[in-house]
Amino acid sequence: MANEFFAGMPVIKEEKESVKIIPLGGVGQIGMNITAFEYKDSIIVVDCGLAFPDDEMLGIDLVIPDVTFLKDNIEKVKGFFITHAHEDHIGSIPYVFREINVPIYSTKLTCAIIENKLKEHDLQYAVELNVIEFGQTVSVDEFEVEFVKMNHSISDAACFAIHTSIGTIIHTGDFKVDYTPVFGDVADLQRLGELGKKGVLALLADSTNAERPGFAMSERTVGRTFENIFIENVNKRLIIATFASNVDRVQQIIDKAAKFGRKVVIEGRSMITIMNTATELGYISVPENIIIDIDQMKNYPPEKLVLITTGSQGESMAALSRMAGDTHKKVKIDENDTVVFSSSPIPGNEKNVFKIINELSLKKAKVIFQDTHVSGHACQDEIKLIYALTKPKYAIPVHGEYKHLIKHAEIASDMGISKENIFVLKPGNVLQISKNNAGFIGSVSAQGILVDGLGIGDVGNCVLRERQQLSENGLVISVSYVDREEHRPVMNSQIITKGFVYEPDEKDLLEELSGFVDMTIEDEVNGSSDDINHLQAVVKKELLTYIRKKMKRSPVVISIIQEG
Amino acid sequence: MANEFFAGMPVIKEEKESVKIIPLGGVGQIGMNITAFEYKDSIIVVDCGLAFPDDEMLGIDLVIPDVTFLKDNIEKVKGFFITHAHEDHIGSIPYVFREINVPIYSTKLTCAIIENKLKEHDLQYAVELNVIEFGQTVSVDEFEVEFVKMNHSISDAACFAIHTSIGTIIHTGDFKVDYTPVFGDVADLQRLGELGKKGVLALLADSTNAERPGFAMSERTVGRTFENIFIENVNKRLIIATFASNVDRVQQIIDKAAKFGRKVVIEGRSMITIMNTATELGYISVPENIIIDIDQMKNYPPEKLVLITTGSQGESMAALSRMAGDTHKKVKIDENDTVVFSSSPIPGNEKNVFKIINELSLKKAKVIFQDTHVSGHACQDEIKLIYALTKPKYAIPVHGEYKHLIKHAEIASDMGISKENIFVLKPGNVLQISKNNAGFIGSVSAQGILVDGLGIGDVGNCVLRERQQLSENGLVISVSYVDREEHRPVMNSQIITKGFVYEPDEKDLLEELSGFVDMTIEDEVNGSSDDINHLQAVVKKELLTYIRKKMKRSPVVISIIQEG
Repeated sequence: MANEFFAGMPVIKEEKESVKIIPLGGVGQIGMNITAFEYKDSIIVVDCGLAFPDDEMLGIDLVIPDVTFLKDNIEKVKGFFITHAHEDHIGSIPYVFREINVPIYSTKLTCAIIENKLKEHDLQYAVELNVIEFGQTVSVDEFEVEFVKMNHSISDAACFAIHTSIGTIIHTGDFKVDYTPVFGDVADLQRLGELGKKGVLALLADSTNAERPGFAMSERTVGRTFENIFIENVNKRLIIATFASNVDRVQQIIDKAAKFGRKVVIEGRSMITIMNTATELGYISVPENIIIDIDQMKNYPPEKLVLITTGSQGESMAALSRMAGDTHKKVKIDENDTVVFSSSPIPGNEKNVFKIINELSLKKAKVIFQDTHVSGHACQDEIKLIYALTKPKYAIPVHGEYKHLIKHAEIASDMGISKENIFVLKPGNVLQISKNNAGFIGSVSAQGILVDGLGIGDVGNCVLRERQQLSENGLVISVSYVDREEHRPVMNSQIITKGFVYEPDEKDLLEELSGFVDMTIEDEVNGSSDDINHLQAVVKKELLTYIRKKMKRSPVVISIIQEG
Repeated sequence: MANEFFAGMPVIKEEKESVKIIPLGGVGQIGMNITAFEYKDSIIVVDCGLAFPDDEMLGIDLVIPDVTFLKDNIEKVKGFFITHAHEDHIGSIPYVFREINVPIYSTKLTCAIIENKLKEHDLQYAVELNVIEFGQTVSVDEFEVEFVKMNHSISDAACFAIHTSIGTIIHTGDFKVDYTPVFGDVADLQRLGELGKKGVLALLADSTNAERPGFAMSERTVGRTFENIFIENVNKRLIIATFASNVDRVQQIIDKAAKFGRKVVIEGRSMITIMNTATELGYISVPENIIIDIDQMKNYPPEKLVLITTGSQGESMAALSRMAGDTHKKVKIDENDTVVFSSSPIPGNEKNVFKIINELSLKKAKVIFQDTHVSGHACQDEIKLIYALTKPKYAIPVHGEYKHLIKHAEIASDMGISKENIFVLKPGNVLQISKNNAGFIGSVSAQGILVDGLGIGDVGNCVLRERQQLSENGLVISVSYVDREEHRPVMNSQIITKGFVYEPDEKDLLEELSGFVDMTIEDEVNGSSDDINHLQAVVKKELLTYIRKKMKRSPVVISIIQEG
């Protein structure tokens, strides 16, 4: 099955009366969701997310999309529509909006969280934010974008029905269907059905959980698990770690705290920021006097406290990691604590999470790790439901690695979409959809751009390769001094190492290497050449060969030769 | 619960008539299983494994145990008893046996695999290997070590009943209970029951799956899954990746290949080595003419072939990874392939495995990832069974991270072992067990030793920290030349970088940094001091501060100042 949806497809002719769909990220990878829609002289963009670096991206803080295509067509770009306020959908805004400045449209909570983010980057006055309500439609040039209510692991998630004169395209954003949401309403399935009845040209839908059968559990089920945890741990302090943005989860913890007479401490910078925003906007309701400052904890016995904290993914700088590692200034873990991970580790984070669980276990805390989380993404039956309601002509799986997109493509096929109408895209692929035809017409540049500190895009593959080599075997520098005439060594070469060998073993080795370098220079000067650049190259090569042979290691070797 | 078994326990008085149990690894961590047993003037050691490095151990190939305790008591050490031939139980033998040379005792397949390993290190004539059969007892000084049949994911796994004049201690090794094993017999539950009836002083048992309820599935159930895969993929070439050492798994694949008329190709160095050994010793039975050389593949259509390959954990150098990444010389993946992962990713390997699945998906191969593996480790009910049979006085959970050991301790407690008789140890802890008492009497050195290339233990925390820093932000070296008298710069400082910024952006920056260094030296010489060492320290500090401020990065900075 997996096969029919892929690359090597024929390139079709460009048509004027067509919508071009261009994912600049978010397909074939986790995160960095951003998709451009072009129709006539207008472009709109859905989402503007970031990705977190892979293990091999050493020292990289985050990855943002390449928006060259948008910059090259800047006069056409009319607005960004943001589905919801997770980092993989909003995180690149502060970077992208330094160069592209058009209005942003999103729901209330999403706008507020984007605004917090812009403030951190001193950009709050530079970007126009428009709050849109569900059911409202925004007209920009050739597009009419209708906001449809969805469910997800953050409130106020929207699906967009993008109406054009050639048809309606639906982009679900991240979604699940929660019949019993903690806050707000069930996804607007009626409207999706109505849109489907009228005819949907194309559907771009979330693939994250396409490998999982059935339905995602309702957020409300976690509340019942919390209830049991509160009952079974009446004599313990409870520390519950979850995603800062999962306001409904925090609401449920606060509700249980109220029911069982505990005070609540909110800990971790991002948790505090989002809680303040959510409370202000009424997305969370907090009983009076239940939240106390972390400094007041000492006035309450452990069994009267719940801490809600960041760090459920084992992030090394987050509050929970500092508690487990004994570097948190205000919270010490002991046998009176029960720590709950209300999350699942994202692939790649397992080892960090397990490290924290081991540290907590050593401190005699009880750890609860399973059955305290539900996913925010549609499983197979929810994906099928969306196809059953919208019955699109064309299907474009988004949000997921290739294995997810391909599984989603199989589901779409099972739901009756003909295989030639299902498109698994790579970042930058331009898919053209007209009334009667669809296919690839080419590609635009869409490589992720690496951000390291304040540098955007100045770390490339070459720099990463050097970092990799440095990280695996360290560094050896030889500094030699030679006379001006014959370029013979005038004193012993200096050898400086970093990350190479452990000091007590080092002294003899350094002397040996220093002697080897001096000898190499002498030999070379006697022989082929005394050109300084040539000498440096020879020393570098010979020294590396010598070290490889002696120690089976390949450090980065630098030779500096200076005329005395 | 988790709490009662831990550290901070009172140190008891040393007694002469006692056995000391000293895990030098394998507790609180995955891998590196090695436990010493001391009684009177004799020491025996069970297993001699290695661990694979954590993510933060940059450039480290593997981790071996610190055996200082054994070396300091070398005249007492009488032999190593090896439970089975997995790397985490035998992998350190070639390193440890350079310094400690005593006889090794193990079962036939285990001995053969150890012998292969010794050959790779040119040590095959240096170590005495003794093949022992199940039911046999080996006498060494004060110990009588009885070999009891166990089940595991490799054949010939043994449990040891270590008899001393103060009682019997049982060490299970890695185990599961497989009532329908593919090769050989069910674990010798009768003998364990008989030993229990006579009285068992202490039990050291596998904790790996202590978090999982129920029973581990029989290896034979995987055969039924394979049968379905062969039926459902009649038109495809099958590529099945699994652990090289899981001979029973390979046997089942070969059986299905024979049944469905396919030829078998064995691929991957370790797979070929173990297959040869297992075939030679009769641990696997291969129908005539079924195995073909990889070069003969071209003579058969895809649907007549099965490849059995290494790389199921996403190891970057293994055969499967090379196939997925298009660097395998003899196997090209396409839409005629179905690739089966007959394994579960070990925590930490998920991302590598998923990367390969995505690459295979992009090549249009079908990937089967779930339900084609069973664990080789006892789940909760199997652990309970062993307690029910042996009814030990003292329980010492081994083989697992702390979270596993603590869960195992809870199970032991549920099985009626009193809490003060359950000991969760850290590496190096010395547990003394006498007829009527047990407790800690101190600790010996037991830090893992890092192996990098040919260097053993010459990379310590300091070197790892340097590698970490190099890997995250790269390196900046300034080389300055100053006059002999006043130490003022006589030419522009040179700036050399590695892994720092991308070249086209670099030129202006390097000039700027060079100017900054010259200015810093001038200022310093005018001001406080012109001592060369002091100047180097100042340049290093100021240059780093400058870069941090300008770019929010912290490279390793080295300053070299040379008098002209």
